[in-house]
Amino acid sequence: MTMQYGPSYVRQIAPYIAGKPISEVAREFGLDEARIVKLASNENPLGMPDSAKAAMATAVAELGRYPDSNAFELKEALAKRYEVPAEWITLGNGSNDILELAAHAFVEKGQSIVYAQYSFAVYALATQGLGARAIVTPAVKYGHDLDAMLRSIEPDTRLIFIANPNNPTGTFIEGPALEAFLEKVPKNVVVVLDEAYTEYLPVEKRYDSIAWVRRYSNLLVSRTFSKAYGLAGLRVGFAIAQPELTDLLNRLRQPFNVNTIAQAAAVAALGDRAFLEKSAALNAAGYRRLTEAFDKLGLEYVPSFGNFVLVRVGNDDGAGARVNLALLKAGVIVRPVGNYGLPQWLRVTIGLPEENEAFIAALEQALAVG
Amino acid sequence: MTMQYGPSYVRQIAPYIAGKPISEVAREFGLDEARIVKLASNENPLGMPDSAKAAMATAVAELGRYPDSNAFELKEALAKRYEVPAEWITLGNGSNDILELAAHAFVEKGQSIVYAQYSFAVYALATQGLGARAIVTPAVKYGHDLDAMLRSIEPDTRLIFIANPNNPTGTFIEGPALEAFLEKVPKNVVVVLDEAYTEYLPVEKRYDSIAWVRRYSNLLVSRTFSKAYGLAGLRVGFAIAQPELTDLLNRLRQPFNVNTIAQAAAVAALGDRAFLEKSAALNAAGYRRLTEAFDKLGLEYVPSFGNFVLVRVGNDDGAGARVNLALLKAGVIVRPVGNYGLPQWLRVTIGLPEENEAFIAALEQALAVG
Repeated sequence: MTMQYGPSYVRQIAPYIAGKPISEVAREFGLDEARIVKLASNENPLGMPDSAKAAMATAVAELGRYPDSNAFELKEALAKRYEVPAEWITLGNGSNDILELAAHAFVEKGQSIVYAQYSFAVYALATQGLGARAIVTPAVKYGHDLDAMLRSIEPDTRLIFIANPNNPTGTFIEGPALEAFLEKVPKNVVVVLDEAYTEYLPVEKRYDSIAWVRRYSNLLVSRTFSKAYGLAGLRVGFAIAQPELTDLLNRLRQPFNVNTIAQAAAVAALGDRAFLEKSAALNAAGYRRLTEAFDKLGLEYVPSFGNFVLVRVGNDDGAGARVNLALLKAGVIVRPVGNYGLPQWLRVTIGLPEENEAFIAALEQALAVG
Repeated sequence: MTMQYGPSYVRQIAPYIAGKPISEVAREFGLDEARIVKLASNENPLGMPDSAKAAMATAVAELGRYPDSNAFELKEALAKRYEVPAEWITLGNGSNDILELAAHAFVEKGQSIVYAQYSFAVYALATQGLGARAIVTPAVKYGHDLDAMLRSIEPDTRLIFIANPNNPTGTFIEGPALEAFLEKVPKNVVVVLDEAYTEYLPVEKRYDSIAWVRRYSNLLVSRTFSKAYGLAGLRVGFAIAQPELTDLLNRLRQPFNVNTIAQAAAVAALGDRAFLEKSAALNAAGYRRLTEAFDKLGLEYVPSFGNFVLVRVGNDDGAGARVNLALLKAGVIVRPVGNYGLPQWLRVTIGLPEENEAFIAALEQALAVG
């Protein structure tokens, strides 16, 4: 007799399948690791800023000690930058941790969570992990349909996840539309506005979501150091919200969820405006190059406001997997998005110029053969 | 009108209060940071091993990338050390993460979790965070009463937490007693055996809990790199259990819960037997010194198998707080345990010889004044 452990809603979660590491692709396809190009996880192709490396080095002496649970320095730096009290900030082990904490803090088993089709996979995982009910609103042009989201709110809805820009599609909701939406959401429903890619927005698209946090007690803004700040390997994300929400997150937060090195590196990265500007400029140029290539190849793509592009590589549902395999054989790792219900598409991270060229060359080859 | 967000069981959790950081004590009591002795968090007084520092340095180049979600190298190293398949291992952001994951994976709202009075605070937090019901069995001689724990199991019990050695009391359950207990626990109840301090056990007290994992499909052993291995600031813990349990943990685990630096440092620390032996020897000598001093002062203490000692500093319920304040003024930070229902006691971490002497001198002074 086999025992069944755990709640049925946990047993029903699809096990997470991580992206293929470079070493595994090298082994599987007999390739040289050094020549593999990885454009699969929306990381900053510049890596970690030197300022953060220097800050890390000085923190090494402290690693036998537990991290500062209250992350005094990092919270002070964030409070100063965003002009909010330090008590409005919650730190996470990446923004993944923030998204999970928010679901656990505001929703219980059986209640519902609203999010959009083709939005970030963690929203579904966090919902399933709670035994909560997902209300998934159909996408419009691969992005959020805010009116449909408002209409889909039910009496037991406690949380709405919005990604802006959205991953994996790159779509963007203009500030005024988002503000009008926030005004209409019932005050007993928490809105988690996930802005993991906000640092890549062109100046004319930026909006002040922190001002909205001051106005709406049911708004939580989630940010990360894993993208434009280049600290994906260290795990730091943060939430900004009024104390009523922050207090609940902190009751559930693991006391030492953000490690010492990550705290030190994040303080330095936050102050490194030059690195952020360089990263955004590199990304903008790479976006132009990739989309020109897609235009030339006659490939549909979703205009993106992140550091990645969703591109349709064929009109049959085998296209994504087929082209992905051809790219892997050529030593280029991108992200298939069949699990998002987008089997004809691939998501490619914008890389360094030479990485973008390698991808384009491999894509041309793959499509010619296909 | 003030909105109430979140489930009532989340609102009822007592907010976590972290230990006082050295910098805060220095500010509050007008002391020199460099002269403050911190014996409050059961950290390894030797800090991080040099082997782990070296491994960290080589991992820095990778920090712009997400960590390896499957932690290939660390799992391989652990699998080899413990002679289990890598698939039996789950990594956590410290063992705190493992304990939380286990509660979420095996228990749902309203079901019950059994743990002992005076056992680790995270068991209560994980139970409350789920809206599960705690069944707390009274301690015997400040340790687990396994027979009482068996009798307390109810039809809806899904999990039992056992800490061995226990924190904050330092008590130890002999291997044969634990094995007999495991044999009697119903197979539908998962036992989480939290062995955070196991590396400090004297050779004659060691038992092979991994052999039990092979035999009992409902057993999960939790370990950490935060204590004897000296990596508290990096956050690495792990669970060993059969695939049926491991699989559920992995469905809930945040994909990038263990950071890149921590993975690299843990591989090195795991291979550094010399550091572990040095840490255990230093601890044994410090334990002898502290307990001799307690004997001389006529203070009751609980014989400890960890890297800390629970000592009764007075017979009135103000004693712990009073002596703690006197110690803080003298620049020595220990852990008051009133929140564990032990207001007459303090928990002191075994430090370097000079740290132990500073604590003993400050304690003598505090008791003489008191």
